[in-house]
Amino acid sequence: MINRDGGIACYQQLSEILIKQIEEDVFRSSEQIPTEMELSKKYKLNRHTVRQAIERLKNEGFVYTIKGKGTFVANTKISYKVSRKTRFTTSILDVGLNPDARLLDSYEISAGSELSGKLNIKSSDKVTVLEILRFVNKMPFCHTTSFLGSDRFPDIQNHIRGNFSLYELLKKHYDVEATRTSSTFEVSMPENPDMDILQISPKIPLLVVKSAAKDQNREVVEYCITKFRGDICSITVDFNAEGR
Amino acid sequence: MINRDGGIACYQQLSEILIKQIEEDVFRSSEQIPTEMELSKKYKLNRHTVRQAIERLKNEGFVYTIKGKGTFVANTKISYKVSRKTRFTTSILDVGLNPDARLLDSYEISAGSELSGKLNIKSSDKVTVLEILRFVNKMPFCHTTSFLGSDRFPDIQNHIRGNFSLYELLKKHYDVEATRTSSTFEVSMPENPDMDILQISPKIPLLVVKSAAKDQNREVVEYCITKFRGDICSITVDFNAEGR
Repeated sequence: MINRDGGIACYQQLSEILIKQIEEDVFRSSEQIPTEMELSKKYKLNRHTVRQAIERLKNEGFVYTIKGKGTFVANTKISYKVSRKTRFTTSILDVGLNPDARLLDSYEISAGSELSGKLNIKSSDKVTVLEILRFVNKMPFCHTTSFLGSDRFPDIQNHIRGNFSLYELLKKHYDVEATRTSSTFEVSMPENPDMDILQISPKIPLLVVKSAAKDQNREVVEYCITKFRGDICSITVDFNAEGR
Repeated sequence: MINRDGGIACYQQLSEILIKQIEEDVFRSSEQIPTEMELSKKYKLNRHTVRQAIERLKNEGFVYTIKGKGTFVANTKISYKVSRKTRFTTSILDVGLNPDARLLDSYEISAGSELSGKLNIKSSDKVTVLEILRFVNKMPFCHTTSFLGSDRFPDIQNHIRGNFSLYELLKKHYDVEATRTSSTFEVSMPENPDMDILQISPKIPLLVVKSAAKDQNREVVEYCITKFRGDICSITVDFNAEGR
């Protein structure tokens, strides 16, 4: 239990106890841990101390909080498979988890020099930007910024309702079968908007994946940048599956 | 120049000046920046202040230091391509940079439950572990821990001399043509040994890639964990190249 005489702060002792319990599977992945009030009663600590301990667990990626729901164990990484043909929805369903997507925002910009090169359009052409937040078991998992030529995909934002799959939507409304051509993996620390959107602390690094997709005629149709929560995300590329 | 009356610390002002110069390509990628003494003379600051400014640039991944050589600009990421057949050496040569590898350590362990599954051997079987540090333009770039069955690759550590390519060595001495079957991408913050080996600060996240390789008979021959410096590394998977 908590030792009040020693040199170690009570919140630190509590967070060590909880980490040990997570590591020993007393609390399993995605399971809710006791509330602040329950922990405060059990360990005879004030709420402020308990909050500090949970804050530390969050910072170190052991747990995550869903507003109004509670604090959950995040120690196991979510295995996300990526290949030419994989979709977010199917990849997450494949590992027995529950995927969801929400359009945060959509707007139009001019392609400019960088996007015109990536999308093979003129720099004066319009590009529709879709900001998509994807969830796994209701927890924010990744934030995608998707760039699509507005001429090629007119009014695309109006086709999006509730939980959606972008590639299914491209197929249904534009007869485009998109396949991934390349993905670039990088790492960065989160900035303020990332922390808000993904509900993470500044200490959680991001796995940033930049991908391009082509249609059935091998023309580039989409460029996107996805920021995954590095504390819970593990992305596997199966090189054998690619040849199929 | 440096404003000594304002509320902004001198080291912070100097680091801002240097960041601006890096961003404006006054100092280009891989180029050496002026020494502490030169900066101290130019900006009329004491060496301690200059060191603080450079320390901040290092922490933020703008520069890196090579012992006994100086401080160099690291702002452009090194594009590293990964496919079934790529080797570290060729990938780095392809982007016009200079690869190098050094064996840090080699030792034998028992496979145990995890490695026996990954390498398809018995858990009592011996595994040779190679700790390899790879460099790009003499800068530490990634640290690979490679696991190979000792029965399959007897005395492998004795074949390694100076700069080497592991897959070339497997081919030359064991007639094994290794190809990558899968790679899993994750992110983590560095621990003490990582910081020492890769010469990075605790603030630089790592891109961690776990890969398996098979031989020409489709038997697993190697499992490895590579920690890349996240501040300078960008790994691209080309899904079109995989089908060849």
